[in-house]
Amino acid sequence: MYIGVDIGGTNITAGIIDQKGNLLYKDSIETNKESSFDIIVKNIYKLILDLLKETNTKIDNVLSIGLGSPGLSKKEEGIVAFANNLDWYNVPLRSELRKYFDIPIYIENDANTAALAESMVGACKGFENSITLTLGTGLGSGIILNGKPYSGVHGVGSELGHIIVHVNGIQCTCGAKGCLERYASATSLIREGRLAASNNKESLIFKKVNGDLDKITAKTVIDSAKENDKDANDIFDGFVNYLAMGIISIINSIDPSIIALGGGVAKAGDFLLRPLKAKVSENIFYKSEPYAEIVLAELGNDAGVIGAAMLGMINR
Amino acid sequence: MYIGVDIGGTNITAGIIDQKGNLLYKDSIETNKESSFDIIVKNIYKLILDLLKETNTKIDNVLSIGLGSPGLSKKEEGIVAFANNLDWYNVPLRSELRKYFDIPIYIENDANTAALAESMVGACKGFENSITLTLGTGLGSGIILNGKPYSGVHGVGSELGHIIVHVNGIQCTCGAKGCLERYASATSLIREGRLAASNNKESLIFKKVNGDLDKITAKTVIDSAKENDKDANDIFDGFVNYLAMGIISIINSIDPSIIALGGGVAKAGDFLLRPLKAKVSENIFYKSEPYAEIVLAELGNDAGVIGAAMLGMINR
Repeated sequence: MYIGVDIGGTNITAGIIDQKGNLLYKDSIETNKESSFDIIVKNIYKLILDLLKETNTKIDNVLSIGLGSPGLSKKEEGIVAFANNLDWYNVPLRSELRKYFDIPIYIENDANTAALAESMVGACKGFENSITLTLGTGLGSGIILNGKPYSGVHGVGSELGHIIVHVNGIQCTCGAKGCLERYASATSLIREGRLAASNNKESLIFKKVNGDLDKITAKTVIDSAKENDKDANDIFDGFVNYLAMGIISIINSIDPSIIALGGGVAKAGDFLLRPLKAKVSENIFYKSEPYAEIVLAELGNDAGVIGAAMLGMINR
Repeated sequence: MYIGVDIGGTNITAGIIDQKGNLLYKDSIETNKESSFDIIVKNIYKLILDLLKETNTKIDNVLSIGLGSPGLSKKEEGIVAFANNLDWYNVPLRSELRKYFDIPIYIENDANTAALAESMVGACKGFENSITLTLGTGLGSGIILNGKPYSGVHGVGSELGHIIVHVNGIQCTCGAKGCLERYASATSLIREGRLAASNNKESLIFKKVNGDLDKITAKTVIDSAKENDKDANDIFDGFVNYLAMGIISIINSIDPSIIALGGGVAKAGDFLLRPLKAKVSENIFYKSEPYAEIVLAELGNDAGVIGAAMLGMINR
């Protein structure tokens, strides 16, 4: 059995999987990111102890622990170099947890662990080369090449939310302008939804939140578009267009077998997938050649914890 | 020894290299692309015969022949699927040349062969993961991962000139809009140079061609920028900005060890490299982490033929 831990800014989830990748049990705690690094790791230790107890598992039967962290992880050194939403900078995650468990411990970026899970037991199962895009607050991405997470030579790659799709465009948190995640994330739908609602009180977006613009979510915009509101349709069409062009850039460069879409916005399902695939097909370079299938991710929020646990499988 | 053939729209060059990758001899003929496919292959056969004669080499001492072709090659099938500037569509290049030579024959995209040569004996020597961008009429690119050309799962990847850097931007020949090569190629410098010269007869660009706008080349614009002409400076700054943002997208996704710049525009040398590196450094995501070095390619026009010959080395 393998244990996986998905460390997020709000919650930490730990789970245990069997040799086939089935999630047997999972449990969560609040991250309490105000706590010091060593306290958070101690909380992870306790969470894992509870997990072992609940599943009646001896630690001797656990082959490894995998940790998925946001930001930039250095797998070899076992440190998290940057994780803004945890306020972690160059923290020795592996050695700190090693104080409690004397078994192999692996660390990896959380978008990569989610992509790994989708590639092994989810939407990308059966393909050695796949990419999972997570359409949430930002646009997270994991690249799987030859069955393993690919982060590039320096570990700074695989950030497909930060390919630049509009030079001199909207300022991004990364320092550059015009990154894909400024135009194709829940955040972009919210930004555009607020703008439209403040400009047009007749829009369904405005009505759905009774004029309280702070209540606008990505779902507000998507639901309004489904009900054929003009403003919402324009916003959603723009979102689809940007995402399609980002996907074309990914196909024209990395050319994976399959691209899976997860995260909150992907809950729009076929309402997103159908126009997206049409737009990609219309604008792709080699029109008569096969290219990556575009599908919905399957594992939802569990992808992170399952993939973290799987780090032990692929590193054996 | 290995033979390489670089098939271009204007000329076909064949060369012979030793085990260390030294180019011992090369020779060229005109492509005559009006000729039928089988006649062109027959001309390649004759060119190789001449090469063997001139270098006093027996075919028994040649381990393989490698062919670099523009467009989309299918390595396994040995066919060129699309090569617009040769008017080749699904031509069986390998089996046609096999009629003349009973030794292993490899085919590959010409930008990939150039990148392979730079990675083995040129600017990227010593690195397993590198990218060579060729700034010419278009923006050609070859990705080398683990020492071998990477073209993706379906062979449609590695087209970094067609990552989209300006959604809804300038129409590209590939069908999409806003591809990198519309903004960062010799063609873009010529387009912008002509526009500036037609708008301002006082510009150095206009003066250098005595008002004959058809004579404007990328070099006209670069030379004018070097002499501090305002129009030319603006154009060149724009070019550098787009190329920098394209390179940032490449780093944020593929994260290679090193990126080499070749082709006509790269002859600008440090005049290009210095502002380009500054712009990348200013806008890169993880500012304190190491990322790809950016350098000038070293092999010039020979890269294609050397890399084609090297296909035999890496496929043994």
